[in-house]
Amino acid sequence: MSGNPKPLGKLYLLPVPLAAGAEEKSFTPFWTQTVNHLKTFIVEQEKTARKFLKEGGLKTPQAELKIYDYGKHQRGQSVATYFKELKAGEDVGLMSEAGCPGVADPGAELVAYAHSQGIQVIPLVGPNSMIQALMASGLTGQSFAFHGYLPIDKAERSKRIKELEQMSTRYKQTQLFMETPFRNTQLFEEIIRSCHPQTHLCIACDLNAETEWIKTMSVGQWKKEKPELHKRPCIFLILKNN
Amino acid sequence: MSGNPKPLGKLYLLPVPLAAGAEEKSFTPFWTQTVNHLKTFIVEQEKTARKFLKEGGLKTPQAELKIYDYGKHQRGQSVATYFKELKAGEDVGLMSEAGCPGVADPGAELVAYAHSQGIQVIPLVGPNSMIQALMASGLTGQSFAFHGYLPIDKAERSKRIKELEQMSTRYKQTQLFMETPFRNTQLFEEIIRSCHPQTHLCIACDLNAETEWIKTMSVGQWKKEKPELHKRPCIFLILKNN
Repeated sequence: MSGNPKPLGKLYLLPVPLAAGAEEKSFTPFWTQTVNHLKTFIVEQEKTARKFLKEGGLKTPQAELKIYDYGKHQRGQSVATYFKELKAGEDVGLMSEAGCPGVADPGAELVAYAHSQGIQVIPLVGPNSMIQALMASGLTGQSFAFHGYLPIDKAERSKRIKELEQMSTRYKQTQLFMETPFRNTQLFEEIIRSCHPQTHLCIACDLNAETEWIKTMSVGQWKKEKPELHKRPCIFLILKNN
Repeated sequence: MSGNPKPLGKLYLLPVPLAAGAEEKSFTPFWTQTVNHLKTFIVEQEKTARKFLKEGGLKTPQAELKIYDYGKHQRGQSVATYFKELKAGEDVGLMSEAGCPGVADPGAELVAYAHSQGIQVIPLVGPNSMIQALMASGLTGQSFAFHGYLPIDKAERSKRIKELEQMSTRYKQTQLFMETPFRNTQLFEEIIRSCHPQTHLCIACDLNAETEWIKTMSVGQWKKEKPELHKRPCIFLILKNN
């Protein structure tokens, strides 16, 4: 009972580019204003975070920043250590290595902790490969599901692809998933083998990069065209209508 | 066999703000560059589309624009009529009324037609209420599903909420849905009645507006706090861990 509690800082969630050279496609004026108002950042990797801040228009000398490297966080260790400034009333930024923190990327644990402490969370507009792929696919965006990585085991993966195809029909829902880029070709071949020829498949590669490439065709049509996907970040989307 | 085919135009997908006064939060420099390079737009409503173009930095006199009002499109009518310029080699922009075209909004049919004609589709970065809500929820973003609107019938809606709660546990997947804003309070009460007290519920309201409000708590905690949601655009997110 020591009078009014000290006001807490706000946690700003800062999306970052998906590709090199995509600054003008990625940063809003509000992103730039926000980072210039912050001194403390919680990031997935310090080196790239500093690069993103510079590319996004940070004017503050980098030596004046306090950077918490969340990528070095140990499992089981409390995240409370990153919240000293927020609890003292200072606003703080959160960044991951690509796209939106916490979306197919680390960060959700920190945001959850913020909520548990009554800290206001402010999500900024920015790049997100799933939404950009979905919008560009022409497949339904009225209902959709993102499943992250599929199983690595070949039999399990094939089974999972068939399950997702069935779910897409049952719920009229576009199904999105991804793979580590050096296994994309195998995943593509698995989809072609496992899915019905009428199933729609969209592949969205290198989003926001100069080499961006997005194409939607039926599985039957894809059988005649083998795309070059090796080591390119891709989102795969499938939908089978009835 | 009349020599090289004429090169086709590109279809640019242009997200627009979710809230009034959110220009600086919403438009990237590339958005502004892109609209200044286009003369033809396919839009959900002409009046608001012209307003967005102005707010986003269009320099071209509006009288020089060709605007197709896709919102007036009749069911069953071919969308081919909107593709005259694209087929003649001119780049064209596509916009909806809020957020990303084709994502919980009209537009997917046009994008699908573009793919069928071999027209390149370029999705720009911009506001999306689902991704911003997910990022800010602190709930898992490794796997998530957006279901659009739930059934209006009370018994069916309650059943659907319970199904989504089960799916969230089974797939470790955050479940997102929405409601027409004047029914938000009823939906909130239905969630509170239908879900387990340990289920996490995030409500993300008025995203990118001055009145933005986002909060995640357990259903048990929400029972003690009734939020003011009436007529405010909201995304609801649930996740039950085991």
